Amino acid sequence: MAVAEHTTKAFDNDLQELGRMIAEMGGLAERQIVEVIEALTKRDMERAGRVVLADAAIDSLQRNIEERAVVTIARRQPMAIDLREVVGVLRISNELERIGDLAKNIGKRVIALNDGEISRRSMRGVRHMASLALAQLRDALDSLARRDLVKAGAVRVRDEEVDRMDSSMFRELLTSMFEDPGTIAASIHLVFCTKNIERMGDHATNIAEAVQYIIEGSALPDELARSPDADMHPLAVEF
Amino acid sequence: MAVAEHTTKAFDNDLQELGRMIAEMGGLAERQIVEVIEALTKRDMERAGRVVLADAAIDSLQRNIEERAVVTIARRQPMAIDLREVVGVLRISNELERIGDLAKNIGKRVIALNDGEISRRSMRGVRHMASLALAQLRDALDSLARRDLVKAGAVRVRDEEVDRMDSSMFRELLTSMFEDPGTIAASIHLVFCTKNIERMGDHATNIAEAVQYIIEGSALPDELARSPDADMHPLAVEF
Repeated sequence: MAVAEHTTKAFDNDLQELGRMIAEMGGLAERQIVEVIEALTKRDMERAGRVVLADAAIDSLQRNIEERAVVTIARRQPMAIDLREVVGVLRISNELERIGDLAKNIGKRVIALNDGEISRRSMRGVRHMASLALAQLRDALDSLARRDLVKAGAVRVRDEEVDRMDSSMFRELLTSMFEDPGTIAASIHLVFCTKNIERMGDHATNIAEAVQYIIEGSALPDELARSPDADMHPLAVEF
Repeated sequence: MAVAEHTTKAFDNDLQELGRMIAEMGGLAERQIVEVIEALTKRDMERAGRVVLADAAIDSLQRNIEERAVVTIARRQPMAIDLREVVGVLRISNELERIGDLAKNIGKRVIALNDGEISRRSMRGVRHMASLALAQLRDALDSLARRDLVKAGAVRVRDEEVDRMDSSMFRELLTSMFEDPGTIAASIHLVFCTKNIERMGDHATNIAEAVQYIIEGSALPDELARSPDADMHPLAVEF
């Protein structure tokens, strides 16, 4: 009994530490999104460079979380529900790492864009898309902290709006390329940026699903799951 | 002693089963690359559609491997080196899942491309790039099966060629868009295709690094690690 209690206590401490690490990682990922969108809309290449460099901290946190999670499983031998908690944390740290990579990608695009021309309208669109994706991420992390199933479920719904914006911005940029071939290079960079933002939304949705998995032990049916790496929304197919 | 032996035997069986599952997943990922490049170069939309659907099998294998790995860790409490083996398997299954997503993305692009014009030269380039990425993946999986450090190390070197081809194809497609705006939409789809192939190479490289981690217990220094989600090679920045 004393041993079991000791193990439970030790496991709870491990879980708390994992929770702290995930919160730190989530905070970093949020900040990377904010920073890189500022860098993009203000054409601040130095700031973009800092975002690119800062990604290493997120990668390193992910490795630490992975190690800590695996050691926790090996030492404490948690049963079903507790195991799910650790697996959920592992999944979420993977998703956050990928959001970090996407912010880094955008940072590289900002540098490559240099002073290439981008319309104000497109910039407004990017900013709006990014604010939606950021809100998704915040809600997903919040649903984790509060164990809030309703909030987790709402993240997916918002994802559809991000996808729609990505498709409409793509069509808009395509039109501007037709009308003014001089904007082609800059527009392609921006197409990649919006695609990266759209994928951030997918990863935020996956985090929300991991929260559902932790709480309920069930994921959504496979056919509903968004592919985190999908670089294209079905809506975008028809153009 | 009997208990320890029993545990060791059971752990070995678990490891073997995990190895079998990874081999199956690797085989599926290889086939998806072959199929989707055939679909692209032959403009076979039906085949592309099958690739998109077949991705679910890879996703499901990844979940199974994750569960099996975590249960193995919890039940057998492996020590350092054995733990590394299981963590390595977990990482590799993540990378394979992402390669599968990338093949699916290309499948969607093939469908979106429809009968949009693509030059023979570009198609040859795509085919060549894909054969390089496929060779990387095969070598990475082979280095895992044979525990071959030299082969694992060689995967990274080949990755540079894939990156260079991606950059040169990008410049080529950009030129064709300037010269003939009618090709813009098709060319953008192809830019995404080559980017997806380039990222397959990054994931193959990550698999090779996971093999090194399993064998040697050390990963390459962080600053050398390729970002798996990087949608842009530094070489591509200057255009």
